[in-house]
Amino acid sequence: MIRKIAEVRETGELFSSRTLDLAAVMPLAQEILTAVKQRGDAALRAYTEQFDHVTLTNLAVMEDELAAARTKVDENTLSCIEAAAEAIRNFHYRQKRKAWLEEFTEGIYLGEMFMPFDVVGAYVPGSYFSSALMCVIPAKIAGVREIVVCTPPMKDGTVDPHTLVAADLAGATTICKVGGAQAIAALAFGTETVPRVQKIVGPGNVYVTAAKMAAREAGVEIDFPAGPSEVLIIGDETANPAFIAADMLAQAEHGAKSQAVLLTTSHELAVEVERELTAAAPAREAGVAQHWLLVGESLDECFAFANEYAPEHLELVVREPMEALKRIKNAGSVFIGNYAPVAAGDYATGANHVLPTAGYPKLFSGLDVDHFMHRMTLQWLDKDGLARIKEVVVQSCRAEGMEQHAQSVEKRFSADAAH
Amino acid sequence: MIRKIAEVRETGELFSSRTLDLAAVMPLAQEILTAVKQRGDAALRAYTEQFDHVTLTNLAVMEDELAAARTKVDENTLSCIEAAAEAIRNFHYRQKRKAWLEEFTEGIYLGEMFMPFDVVGAYVPGSYFSSALMCVIPAKIAGVREIVVCTPPMKDGTVDPHTLVAADLAGATTICKVGGAQAIAALAFGTETVPRVQKIVGPGNVYVTAAKMAAREAGVEIDFPAGPSEVLIIGDETANPAFIAADMLAQAEHGAKSQAVLLTTSHELAVEVERELTAAAPAREAGVAQHWLLVGESLDECFAFANEYAPEHLELVVREPMEALKRIKNAGSVFIGNYAPVAAGDYATGANHVLPTAGYPKLFSGLDVDHFMHRMTLQWLDKDGLARIKEVVVQSCRAEGMEQHAQSVEKRFSADAAH
Repeated sequence: MIRKIAEVRETGELFSSRTLDLAAVMPLAQEILTAVKQRGDAALRAYTEQFDHVTLTNLAVMEDELAAARTKVDENTLSCIEAAAEAIRNFHYRQKRKAWLEEFTEGIYLGEMFMPFDVVGAYVPGSYFSSALMCVIPAKIAGVREIVVCTPPMKDGTVDPHTLVAADLAGATTICKVGGAQAIAALAFGTETVPRVQKIVGPGNVYVTAAKMAAREAGVEIDFPAGPSEVLIIGDETANPAFIAADMLAQAEHGAKSQAVLLTTSHELAVEVERELTAAAPAREAGVAQHWLLVGESLDECFAFANEYAPEHLELVVREPMEALKRIKNAGSVFIGNYAPVAAGDYATGANHVLPTAGYPKLFSGLDVDHFMHRMTLQWLDKDGLARIKEVVVQSCRAEGMEQHAQSVEKRFSADAAH
Repeated sequence: MIRKIAEVRETGELFSSRTLDLAAVMPLAQEILTAVKQRGDAALRAYTEQFDHVTLTNLAVMEDELAAARTKVDENTLSCIEAAAEAIRNFHYRQKRKAWLEEFTEGIYLGEMFMPFDVVGAYVPGSYFSSALMCVIPAKIAGVREIVVCTPPMKDGTVDPHTLVAADLAGATTICKVGGAQAIAALAFGTETVPRVQKIVGPGNVYVTAAKMAAREAGVEIDFPAGPSEVLIIGDETANPAFIAADMLAQAEHGAKSQAVLLTTSHELAVEVERELTAAAPAREAGVAQHWLLVGESLDECFAFANEYAPEHLELVVREPMEALKRIKNAGSVFIGNYAPVAAGDYATGANHVLPTAGYPKLFSGLDVDHFMHRMTLQWLDKDGLARIKEVVVQSCRAEGMEQHAQSVEKRFSADAAH
């Protein structure tokens, strides 16, 4: 059904359907956190039996399991993993910030240094080797010493070989066969096997997300809350309806709660996309995402709606994309042109596919090197430099009633100052 | 009393004394949050009567109040505020990240854009005009549209004129006469007068911090938790004991819970600093901070302890500071040399003085322009660019079981693709 942007904006239905409702699962997530905090590995084993239906001998992946996984990955797939890893490294190296120190006033040098976290954790859902690359490589480039990956075991007690090989190749230092909320709990509090981490990143289902939010309250940082995946496409008459429909169908593979939204100034485009979607009904029903076809009066109306929606993925397929880009304020990643499907970014361009959803792109940035670093400022003054700002500092201290602060500066210029 | 680093490290006493204990005040902070969420301005007025002992007619500062404040700030102080603002602007402009777009592979352009938050809030304790500058200027430089400052009223219903003039000069768009946990509640939920914000920054007492943590759980971002101020000084035989003692005494002005720690390889330096502190007993008792004088076997031992402590302010006064700097991993801001007292950074160098404490520098960066921005990645592919990675994408999609994702790429190269 083709509808008007203004109408859907008015009802707010598209926005209200995306709130991250964790309340229903939070009690179980909290219970799991408490159990793992108290009982460590024993709780992990019990939950793994309960949820993954497997009894594990070792929770951490051993060297021989890694070797066995390598034999199970065919050459083609391995070269895909390696090509993706290289592209991800190239992009994320470019992202890494460099220390700097500059003389702002004679004798006053200011700067910044960027330091990696020491220990981080990444949650990787079962068979997504691409997510292993996306989570681990930025941490490695940041310089994180210990990178712990948790990923659920299969029923035979092994881990998906693609995921295992990718996590190892990306630089994971420990890989544990734990999934779900219990994995987040293990990373947050540490167990006999799983190291306690400073920050947990990576995608996951609603239990994983609930556990991450609860872990954040317990003092462990997280990347950001994430819900079902979504794509919003802004297209004008230059957009190819078959490509748009294909991307909307791909979105459906992320499940019934994922959304695919087309905003267009061209009623004809909307009609053609609808025709393509109808023709592809079998594929569509396999996923059954929420598909929305919305027509607006102007591109301005599309931009305003998109900024309010703040999509995880935004495709811009318009005649003047650079002009359009100036108007976009909130999105996880922006895909530009008829030949930039989300799938390309999911696997191979090198940009990160771990992105906030459900409007959180207004507040959070997708996974990047910065997520694994903190910053120190540097202030280096010589005697002349301090002399230059002495009066401002001393007067300001006294204006705020900080007499000892004032004297700490004056002391450096008093007769008895030896150096 | 002079003690050994190794001994204090072993007992852990210096670390255990800095945990941010919010549990005692959290129930009241939560109660205030709920009341303000439910009753808005009426609750703000009631709490202001209860805690600040003043009945307000208007919660927002009016133009005539601002004009009146300007007449109360003497010329000297005004020029200090202006000089500090200029230095803060210079440093924070240098910090601002620029959009970029680069061709990584022929036909594949990747990049980043940095976008400001739309509405942010800053909490400024009563008479600290410097904090108003430190919170508002980075937000202004980020490009934030609406910057709401909350600061407690004095008993006569006015706001400290220095703070008011500084907040206005820095670029605040709304200034409200509300303090404490009720200010954080107002910014988190919005009231008739106080706009609801996306992120709350700025220093405050334990109630303010508790309210910020509770607000974060309610979905508003914050800068970071902050407790009592602290300085850790690493000095060798090149450090001036009088300067160190002066900085430790200045720290005492932040109250009984603030800490000042000297780590040194020179027992003589520790003895001289102790002598200076004893001589300054009256000044010291005015504040009564926790003073620690610790002697280590080597600079390495000092660095290891400092990195574990992760101080808000770290002074490095050693013969080879650049060598030392390579060893520092965790600190809010590093002050280098005999002429870089913390007081200079508090007021005039231009670096930000709103910094994490209590070990949080391991996880958080001090206030900066990045705190007010989020990032979008850009992915622009032309047909040749997509063709170059097509095989990797399609194979990867299928390896993860994402058939429609694979087809969304193949569709662009099929015979019926019109564009």
